[in-house]
Amino acid sequence: MTRSGHASDTAADNVDGGEGKTVAPKPYRLVETPGPLSWPELVAVDTWWRASNYLAVGQIYLMRNPLLHTPLVPEDIKPRLLGHFGTVPGLNLVWAHANRVIRQRNLNAVYVAGPGHGGPGPNACAWLEGAYAVLDSDIPRDIAGMQRFFHQFSFPGGVPSHCAPETPGSFHEGGELGYCLLHSFGAALDNPDLVVFCVIGDGEAETGPLAGSWNFNKFLNASRDGAVIPILALNEYKIANPTISARIPQSELVELMHGYGYEPIIVSGDDPSLVHQQMAAAMDTCMDQIAEFQRRARVDGDMRRPRWPMIVMHTPKGWTCPPWVDGKRIEGTFRAHQVPLAEARTNPVHRECLDLWLKSYLPEELFSEDGVPSPVILEQVPTLPMSLNPVANGGLLIKDLDLPDWREYAAEVKEPGQTTHEPTRVLGSWFRDVTKNNPHNFITVAPDELVSNRLGDILEVTGRDWQCEVGKWDVDLSPLGRVIEVLSETMCEGILEGYLLTGRHGVYTTYEAFIHICDAMFNQHAKWLDAALTVPWRRRIASLNYLLTSHVWRQDHNGFTHQDPGFLDVVANKSPDIVRIYLPPDANTLLSTYDHCLRSRHYANVVVAGKNPSPDWLDVNEAAVHCARGVGIWDWACHNDTPGHKPDVVLACAGDIPTLETLAAAAIIRDRLPNLRVRFVNIVDLFRMLPADEHPHGLSDAAFDAIFTTDRPVIIAFHGYPWLVHRLTYRRANHANLHVHGYREKGTTTTPFDMVMLNDLDRFRLVTDVIDRVPGLGEQAAALRQDMEDARFIARRYTREQGADMPVIANWVWPDAAFPTL
Amino acid sequence: MTRSGHASDTAADNVDGGEGKTVAPKPYRLVETPGPLSWPELVAVDTWWRASNYLAVGQIYLMRNPLLHTPLVPEDIKPRLLGHFGTVPGLNLVWAHANRVIRQRNLNAVYVAGPGHGGPGPNACAWLEGAYAVLDSDIPRDIAGMQRFFHQFSFPGGVPSHCAPETPGSFHEGGELGYCLLHSFGAALDNPDLVVFCVIGDGEAETGPLAGSWNFNKFLNASRDGAVIPILALNEYKIANPTISARIPQSELVELMHGYGYEPIIVSGDDPSLVHQQMAAAMDTCMDQIAEFQRRARVDGDMRRPRWPMIVMHTPKGWTCPPWVDGKRIEGTFRAHQVPLAEARTNPVHRECLDLWLKSYLPEELFSEDGVPSPVILEQVPTLPMSLNPVANGGLLIKDLDLPDWREYAAEVKEPGQTTHEPTRVLGSWFRDVTKNNPHNFITVAPDELVSNRLGDILEVTGRDWQCEVGKWDVDLSPLGRVIEVLSETMCEGILEGYLLTGRHGVYTTYEAFIHICDAMFNQHAKWLDAALTVPWRRRIASLNYLLTSHVWRQDHNGFTHQDPGFLDVVANKSPDIVRIYLPPDANTLLSTYDHCLRSRHYANVVVAGKNPSPDWLDVNEAAVHCARGVGIWDWACHNDTPGHKPDVVLACAGDIPTLETLAAAAIIRDRLPNLRVRFVNIVDLFRMLPADEHPHGLSDAAFDAIFTTDRPVIIAFHGYPWLVHRLTYRRANHANLHVHGYREKGTTTTPFDMVMLNDLDRFRLVTDVIDRVPGLGEQAAALRQDMEDARFIARRYTREQGADMPVIANWVWPDAAFPTL
Repeated sequence: MTRSGHASDTAADNVDGGEGKTVAPKPYRLVETPGPLSWPELVAVDTWWRASNYLAVGQIYLMRNPLLHTPLVPEDIKPRLLGHFGTVPGLNLVWAHANRVIRQRNLNAVYVAGPGHGGPGPNACAWLEGAYAVLDSDIPRDIAGMQRFFHQFSFPGGVPSHCAPETPGSFHEGGELGYCLLHSFGAALDNPDLVVFCVIGDGEAETGPLAGSWNFNKFLNASRDGAVIPILALNEYKIANPTISARIPQSELVELMHGYGYEPIIVSGDDPSLVHQQMAAAMDTCMDQIAEFQRRARVDGDMRRPRWPMIVMHTPKGWTCPPWVDGKRIEGTFRAHQVPLAEARTNPVHRECLDLWLKSYLPEELFSEDGVPSPVILEQVPTLPMSLNPVANGGLLIKDLDLPDWREYAAEVKEPGQTTHEPTRVLGSWFRDVTKNNPHNFITVAPDELVSNRLGDILEVTGRDWQCEVGKWDVDLSPLGRVIEVLSETMCEGILEGYLLTGRHGVYTTYEAFIHICDAMFNQHAKWLDAALTVPWRRRIASLNYLLTSHVWRQDHNGFTHQDPGFLDVVANKSPDIVRIYLPPDANTLLSTYDHCLRSRHYANVVVAGKNPSPDWLDVNEAAVHCARGVGIWDWACHNDTPGHKPDVVLACAGDIPTLETLAAAAIIRDRLPNLRVRFVNIVDLFRMLPADEHPHGLSDAAFDAIFTTDRPVIIAFHGYPWLVHRLTYRRANHANLHVHGYREKGTTTTPFDMVMLNDLDRFRLVTDVIDRVPGLGEQAAALRQDMEDARFIARRYTREQGADMPVIANWVWPDAAFPTL
Repeated sequence: MTRSGHASDTAADNVDGGEGKTVAPKPYRLVETPGPLSWPELVAVDTWWRASNYLAVGQIYLMRNPLLHTPLVPEDIKPRLLGHFGTVPGLNLVWAHANRVIRQRNLNAVYVAGPGHGGPGPNACAWLEGAYAVLDSDIPRDIAGMQRFFHQFSFPGGVPSHCAPETPGSFHEGGELGYCLLHSFGAALDNPDLVVFCVIGDGEAETGPLAGSWNFNKFLNASRDGAVIPILALNEYKIANPTISARIPQSELVELMHGYGYEPIIVSGDDPSLVHQQMAAAMDTCMDQIAEFQRRARVDGDMRRPRWPMIVMHTPKGWTCPPWVDGKRIEGTFRAHQVPLAEARTNPVHRECLDLWLKSYLPEELFSEDGVPSPVILEQVPTLPMSLNPVANGGLLIKDLDLPDWREYAAEVKEPGQTTHEPTRVLGSWFRDVTKNNPHNFITVAPDELVSNRLGDILEVTGRDWQCEVGKWDVDLSPLGRVIEVLSETMCEGILEGYLLTGRHGVYTTYEAFIHICDAMFNQHAKWLDAALTVPWRRRIASLNYLLTSHVWRQDHNGFTHQDPGFLDVVANKSPDIVRIYLPPDANTLLSTYDHCLRSRHYANVVVAGKNPSPDWLDVNEAAVHCARGVGIWDWACHNDTPGHKPDVVLACAGDIPTLETLAAAAIIRDRLPNLRVRFVNIVDLFRMLPADEHPHGLSDAAFDAIFTTDRPVIIAFHGYPWLVHRLTYRRANHANLHVHGYREKGTTTTPFDMVMLNDLDRFRLVTDVIDRVPGLGEQAAALRQDMEDARFIARRYTREQGADMPVIANWVWPDAAFPTL
């Protein structure tokens, strides 16, 4: 790395960092250097950079006296110094140079800050661009606005220290690392004119999701999609450690990028006069290459995968901050990660150093006395600034989907349980036409499971997105495919999030157990949605729609590792304003549910549904009504549940397999205990179970009690871990009488019915539980109880010997399902 | 890819796959080819390969007639055909060739099957090696054993279709993809003589965790550690899609491996005569290079990072299976992923094809009439077969840690709450000596957060593991470091899992919110631990110890994105036999807890603890007793809680911040409502809250009721989401009186006390709740209630104006903590 022309130059490096030594940075002298930038351009871009760095330092430290019009006193400085400076100068450098090419080429561009903890940087650039002035009348582009802008940063009731929904121009949550490149690619999909400047921290680059996401260039089409410029911010350090990328030979890093299909351009140095020219040249090269690739694809029709450019930006961590503090090297080291001068309020040496540091940016050149940015800065604001690009506030751009009438895709159901369908296959036929009707703003993502999950009908109208070579036996691939399949749950999630955050729609289908791979990503997206509701200028985006199938109760080919319904528990922890869980019991309820999900806004909708052939319970109208209610009594499955009488027992269920088993139990009871009053309840919308003041979908206590009674035993067969139902219902009057059968961790190889038996969710066990919970049933019930135990024993023995479920169970049909003779 | 000498050769490729065409594979003729293998060696390795392929097909299809001594009839074939054949021939090829070099070089080697769904492959090799005969007397190495071996595969009550704890020689769960290379590296650490053959599926290679894990060669030391040979099984297909690795130019794949620091060796073809020679040469090259690197490091002391070898094994998916079935191409395509002949039991054409397929391996050459493997196979079994290597059954090798007496590291506490410590820093001093005392079997992993989490004392006795270049300002790096820091939660988790599974010990420290990144990995490890308990020959391994800090209540530098205590909910879903959660309230309880964790076996221990200065509540003896009890009444914090009288209210808490706030509330109540009988309870061991029949740590109802009463209000301040406590306690007699204050999703920038106020976990709100729950408190309480509301208002306004908590709150000290005058 060259080291000249800057306060932290060779001389500074050689300062003896002896005990207590604190050295402030000095203003650097910009000099004419060869490169694409004329002298005025060099000055302009450097001025922006200095201004944004000044504003970043101001946010971290100052609660008043923003332009140092009076000598700094302790009261000017925030009592809690929070934030991260280390990555800020790099973020600002990219922003400054992006603005140059945006103006020169009239680009539609957005900015993604992977090192989102450097929030002061993007905040500063947004302030310079006037975004705060537009979006928040309290923060104009003058000294009063600057004062409030500084004060609010990482201050109680203010804005977070990371990029967040509060950050103008950001659509990427800056808290958890690893997803910036995925969000960028997601934004670029179907946005042919968009350029995404994506800064990736060299720390973040070590995460699995980021490492995997380089591969998304195999799915980005130069004709259909916009461009992403990955900029690896190689500042060499994380919180305390050097980064891997910085400590391997540069040749390895170049080979790595080649291996991922990119052409890296190296920008390296710590002399602003030189680095600006390198960065300008790199930006020009990127834009030229992108333009040529897009022309080739769009004009020549050449769909071959380009070797997209990317930039390696190798500059010091904390560049321009104090080189030494208290005898410790700060600039260019891990110690610049957070707040270089930790005691600026209480330690006069630190405070003086802060004063000199701020003045090293020459604020008098940057802002007028009144805090208005200088003309050379204002002239650099593009017509469409990145901080005000509506792409980053996707709700401004979102269009309703053109949805075909789901009723026309419904299974014909004349009587409950007499026909079977594969629910996800029925849904897939509707998805096919959703895909066809919305060719530019709807995608389906899946980790190589689309067809496995019975959604293959979509492939009748589109292919699987693929920009690589095509092998002899490959099928259904297309460079313009609208299904994205890659064996990476994190890639699927991140791409879809980026697509949704920028104003489009989509569905993520995956195996239920493995959606846990995305727990953390879901959490962060949920937090984004929740926090965005509190930002007045944010608009609602499309919901994040999950279709979880190959679920816990259906793992014939797999086993214990594939059994985990716990994503529901993760989801239920998030804000009730944005989470929804649906467990449709059959094909038509699944259709109705998904129609609702694709119309909804700003939720995470989790839908769990089976892909195996299973009985149809409700016809199209019943399904619509049942889904609208979310929970309801199925009259046809009740027995003696006459108005004016309380039932003796309530049988309830949520999920497809639980519904099947509970109906089979109801049939047995009807046959063998004909005097029992049995109410049958099915739950589609899980949050109906919560009290009304806990969730917008929560049933009032009156409505809950009307269904579940206040004093009768309620046997609930539940798709997931049983305690989730208790967690939702513990405040209900009848909670003590709720007995939940669900999944518990037990690992052994089973058949499907074996599996429900193992978990006490089977029809026989449910009947037994009814007998045990309803008092005074007498000898008839005792005999039935014994029959149920015998039935379980026989059924279990049969699976052990035959390797399959007993036909009488596997082929059971409602409603003449009297208890089979065994 | 060359195509000759095999049934699926060019001719077969050109077969018209017309309607209904099913083509069985023909036996291939092995021919002499140039390469390292002599003709007898070539025959030997091919024989092993054919035998293991035969046994794999047998497992998938046959429930009897294992050697086809009679013509195949429907009843010979399993009614449910489960499993995955596509990846099996590749897995078996590696095993066959590994055995050759193991014998020739007397290696200590283990095998990791990344595509673990190919369980029939490793199962088959283990059977050939006699591992089943040794471990399970029911499955000898003869026809009776073969019969049972086939029958049990993916059969109810049998073994899973994936590699699992039931698989001899496996220490890697084969269900969820992405972690094989991490587990392999974890096994190699501190095992200098070990070689790990790690097969990575080209599908799996697309996952984020796998992509990131290539980088672990920057932490593997050629002197201290063993070697990992990554073998990328490039069979071109996933379930339905081609793989990225197979559809980029080979030059890109080679550059990618170079970029990750490996030297790839390509093995490619579908003619066994040729591929065997290539694979043998590749294996020899790998072993030669590894030997040279290890010699250089161990003899010459040259610690420079080597360019480790890896193998790209490019062979057909489902190699040797029927090339065509029902007119569809199978071998060499995605259709070979699971069961190539899906109707073998019911369709005579399929059955005949299966018969020919099995016979194409020439079983009469492989096994005697009695099913005993031929001498040429038995001669290939190494002295220490991979399927019986104790490294893969780590509990056989585990040694107790040499733990210094934690009491000697305890904070001196003369009175409760008069001194403060940073709990994790105190723990770090003990970890330092744990590290020093156990220099070969204890590691600490962290995603760049060791020092941030105040565990830096460890660095006094070791460095951070680092095999890359060292920069001028880098500190504490060492090629032999025993702390592994990489900014990847999945890498940390996977490496530690691999280390534990092979019989060693360790700790994983990370930020609480981001451990969700590892939810899925934790789930899979928990399932492994749980299932391993059911396998008689598996021994218990060390616990997986988490230290979660920078927790939800302490996010000064960060914010909403860093607030998520939900990992506890994920953990609580797993089997009670293996999960433990601890919330020590101060430094000494943290020490005592961790001493217990490091002595424990076969658990996942989740410990949440603060890193910020916080009061010491218990001295060393009190801490030991309290942690042993797990939950207890703190007499010194009670008020009027005299024997023989029930308290008026129980104040309970779990977690450090909740404990602080609850004590402050108790102090206020003591001062202002001196007649109230207040019991103070602290919970360290969260599962004490569960009933005794739900968890081994669960309190009996009698014990629970003795502490929490059966009828008095209980106000609980809880570290996590409040409903977790309800989920644990809903069966308790007094559940209706439990009122839990915990974290709820609310995103705004706060100070620490602001944060607890926002969540109603603050001292003032707890007092208010007591007043609201205890009947008949009268006017004194009403006045206090108003004071509490005023206090909250003032405290909130102060933080908004000053950016910090009120000193009277921030500096509050027990016990003269009368309610401060405001």
